[in-house]
Amino acid sequence: MNAEQAGYQAIDRICDYHVTLRDRPVLSQVEPGYLRKALPSSAPTEGEDFQLIADDYQKYIIPGLTHWQHPSFFAYFPTSSTFEGILAELYASSTSNPGFNWSVSPACTELEAVVMDWIAQLLGLDESFYNISEVGGGIIQTSASESVLVATVAARSRYIREHPQVAMEKLVLYTTTQTHSLGKKAGLVLGLKVRALGVTAQDDFALRGDTLKVALEEDMNAGFHPFILIGTVGTTSSGAVDRLDEIADVAKHYPFLWLHVDAAWAGVAFVCPEYREAYQLPAINSYVDSFCTSFYKWGLIQFDGSCLWVRHRKHLTDALDVTPEFLRSKHGNAGTAIDYRNWQLGLGKRFRSLKFWFVLRARGVKGLQKYISDCIKLNTKFAQSIYESELFSVVTKPSLAMTVFRLAPKSLPQLRTSELNTLNRAFYARLAARNDIAITQTDLNGVFCIRMVIGAEQTLESDVERVLALTKYEAMILLKNQWEGIGGRRGRKTDVVPFHSH
Amino acid sequence: MNAEQAGYQAIDRICDYHVTLRDRPVLSQVEPGYLRKALPSSAPTEGEDFQLIADDYQKYIIPGLTHWQHPSFFAYFPTSSTFEGILAELYASSTSNPGFNWSVSPACTELEAVVMDWIAQLLGLDESFYNISEVGGGIIQTSASESVLVATVAARSRYIREHPQVAMEKLVLYTTTQTHSLGKKAGLVLGLKVRALGVTAQDDFALRGDTLKVALEEDMNAGFHPFILIGTVGTTSSGAVDRLDEIADVAKHYPFLWLHVDAAWAGVAFVCPEYREAYQLPAINSYVDSFCTSFYKWGLIQFDGSCLWVRHRKHLTDALDVTPEFLRSKHGNAGTAIDYRNWQLGLGKRFRSLKFWFVLRARGVKGLQKYISDCIKLNTKFAQSIYESELFSVVTKPSLAMTVFRLAPKSLPQLRTSELNTLNRAFYARLAARNDIAITQTDLNGVFCIRMVIGAEQTLESDVERVLALTKYEAMILLKNQWEGIGGRRGRKTDVVPFHSH
Repeated sequence: MNAEQAGYQAIDRICDYHVTLRDRPVLSQVEPGYLRKALPSSAPTEGEDFQLIADDYQKYIIPGLTHWQHPSFFAYFPTSSTFEGILAELYASSTSNPGFNWSVSPACTELEAVVMDWIAQLLGLDESFYNISEVGGGIIQTSASESVLVATVAARSRYIREHPQVAMEKLVLYTTTQTHSLGKKAGLVLGLKVRALGVTAQDDFALRGDTLKVALEEDMNAGFHPFILIGTVGTTSSGAVDRLDEIADVAKHYPFLWLHVDAAWAGVAFVCPEYREAYQLPAINSYVDSFCTSFYKWGLIQFDGSCLWVRHRKHLTDALDVTPEFLRSKHGNAGTAIDYRNWQLGLGKRFRSLKFWFVLRARGVKGLQKYISDCIKLNTKFAQSIYESELFSVVTKPSLAMTVFRLAPKSLPQLRTSELNTLNRAFYARLAARNDIAITQTDLNGVFCIRMVIGAEQTLESDVERVLALTKYEAMILLKNQWEGIGGRRGRKTDVVPFHSH
Repeated sequence: MNAEQAGYQAIDRICDYHVTLRDRPVLSQVEPGYLRKALPSSAPTEGEDFQLIADDYQKYIIPGLTHWQHPSFFAYFPTSSTFEGILAELYASSTSNPGFNWSVSPACTELEAVVMDWIAQLLGLDESFYNISEVGGGIIQTSASESVLVATVAARSRYIREHPQVAMEKLVLYTTTQTHSLGKKAGLVLGLKVRALGVTAQDDFALRGDTLKVALEEDMNAGFHPFILIGTVGTTSSGAVDRLDEIADVAKHYPFLWLHVDAAWAGVAFVCPEYREAYQLPAINSYVDSFCTSFYKWGLIQFDGSCLWVRHRKHLTDALDVTPEFLRSKHGNAGTAIDYRNWQLGLGKRFRSLKFWFVLRARGVKGLQKYISDCIKLNTKFAQSIYESELFSVVTKPSLAMTVFRLAPKSLPQLRTSELNTLNRAFYARLAARNDIAITQTDLNGVFCIRMVIGAEQTLESDVERVLALTKYEAMILLKNQWEGIGGRRGRKTDVVPFHSH
């Protein structure tokens, strides 16, 4: 088949895929090793017709995918995806270039600089973060992990320049116990000590200013040098929001401490002005050094593409600028255009700004606001049902589109934490064994929890109602079969009927 | 317009783009700031019709691109691109997921493990690098920069585990003066000292074993701890090939030294068995710890996607494994499938193996071999003409598809290096001012050179002949107008007629 036929077929099949998504099992049913068994052990000697390859994609690859855009995918922030974004990636890959400086493809650098300002404005970020400020600026990184790495390298570089005598072994990167694993990984990658500051259930797992202050004094008295804090707006486990207002009040007395805010999924909610104050935008605007939110999490852009803004671009280029002769260009030397290679870890970068441009234009500000609001409304409804339930209870305050809850039957008020954990592990095992829902577990200071997030654009109110019915069904089966005699105590006998997906 | 219409239109326009590529200026003609002037300063409030967006892409973006697949693009390894690869990216982005472990999308992990074995076999890599070895293995990283970072982190982690008392400030990363800027950047990112070992023109800019041995002894006697050497097969500037055979002979006496080989563009040539020995595959197979080649440079895969193989996957996971509760899955815990997140810097990864699978199948081993051979043949022809030219001379031995040369008229044998450099800077300025060719400069131990690489699939013998004619024309104009009286010496008077692209 020729190129155009293969292209039309791909478009048709992708449209079909999205239309039929609801009818597929959300989780793949394959066993480890399924694909190696199915495929030849080496590349073919002669080229094959594209029709065969395209058909093998349907036959071997699709069944091995977990469908992250499925209306019953509630496991992670779901890399919400749009057709406009898919087409942008198609156009971008068709003129492939590594965009490492202005002159190797001016449109790539310029569009990135422009859309990052659009998004900064959309989120209500302070103008000091805009690229047009020529002091701060925004860049699209691969992922939130890379954004944190870049911020940490810039912070370390700034700190070492100001304190050249300090040994690397004495540097400390602060996270909290609820920070995404990217904090710990940045420590591993950079070979730096990481200290996870404690948070409590009473504070809804948010870092408080006093905790930071105590840690700083402790570490500095012990000869350590804390140089960066990774704060979070919307932790992965529970959507906790660090008290950046208090943290800024403390940190201003320790101006060497770089404040990076990771708002990977929750930050996108700033498109709706009503969430800005509660989710700490004022403190971000008035104080932090760098801020990251990943539109592939919850912004209708497919993976990858994480937005990082810094207050002073100079800290990035001071840390990362390597310009060998063969990369010097007339424009780069003149300093009239951003050379994004000096704002990131690698040299090349894909033309990711195109999908932001396409999606922001296709949906408009109102379209993005509506999407975010709809997710939050669905989650509010879900959380309300959990609050009212006889079987479940929330573990911490629901956050935007995330609810963390557990099975805690009001009929069994006497269960201790360890017993409830055992009960919930068994409950989660039942949910995880199903193929018609994807939902995850987490642990909050020793409490085993179930974690539900809502972000797929196809998710309807009826899908959320189904989750409620399904979790209730699995809980009742569990209580009936295994847990009637828990700890010698007897639960109420319950009658259950089989639960079917549709 | 609806999704299918928008998709068909994108396919049509992409096909048109590639068919008409030859008629476009290879370099963009825009001035810095062109796009910001053309676009609104914020995202639209209401969504816009996709037709308008698609038309704006043609109107504003295409003219701002440098066309890396253009038949007259000879500037960098040109991110060779194929329609099959574009369709693979299209399919991959349509089921967007961050593929960070087996269970979040089994097909992504499994296909990556399989195609990395296909490619290892295709290149003639030792079986200890295969994923099926369960000891070594291969992973697709974003870029060669990321591959080097990952290798360096693994090497540092291994070294520090074996030498826990060593301060980070005493660690040294070895490159050569010809190593790609990724070496220096790895040092900046990781905060480590970098020492660039010297190479000479006599050795064709290749690192020799003795140079390494002397450096190791010097540094160790001075209390430093060299822990990794980044060797290169095919340097960016001149295609130099470090003497890995000699290096391995030295390094085996210093077993703590990690040997990483960056063969970003040249490594793909191993698909043709006739280049394996001269380009050091035997030493790679018998000794090195990690090896990288980037198919987006010269392997018909568009950017991004760099292949990294390690001899011991354990060194990656020892350095990079962070597994929080919410990412634990039944398969990850059972250890039956690779969790690629522990082999890379970030957590998520795009489904890049799909484009390798599509392209390897569509072209077959023979198709890829033919593409590489054709590029090398064209370059051999180009280099031969330079050798025979009265105007130009090669600066170092041509390497695969790269020739580094300079203007050095046989009529002006008395010019010193500094004068030749001035002459060649002026010559390069003339080439860089043209929009019908993209070619780059470089510096080899103080010698200013012009650097020509051949990789675009549309490049024909007639395009190479045109470059020869065009460079000759520009050189003659230059010599006539500006250089007749260089250093008080008089060149021959030459008559030149205007040179037109087509």
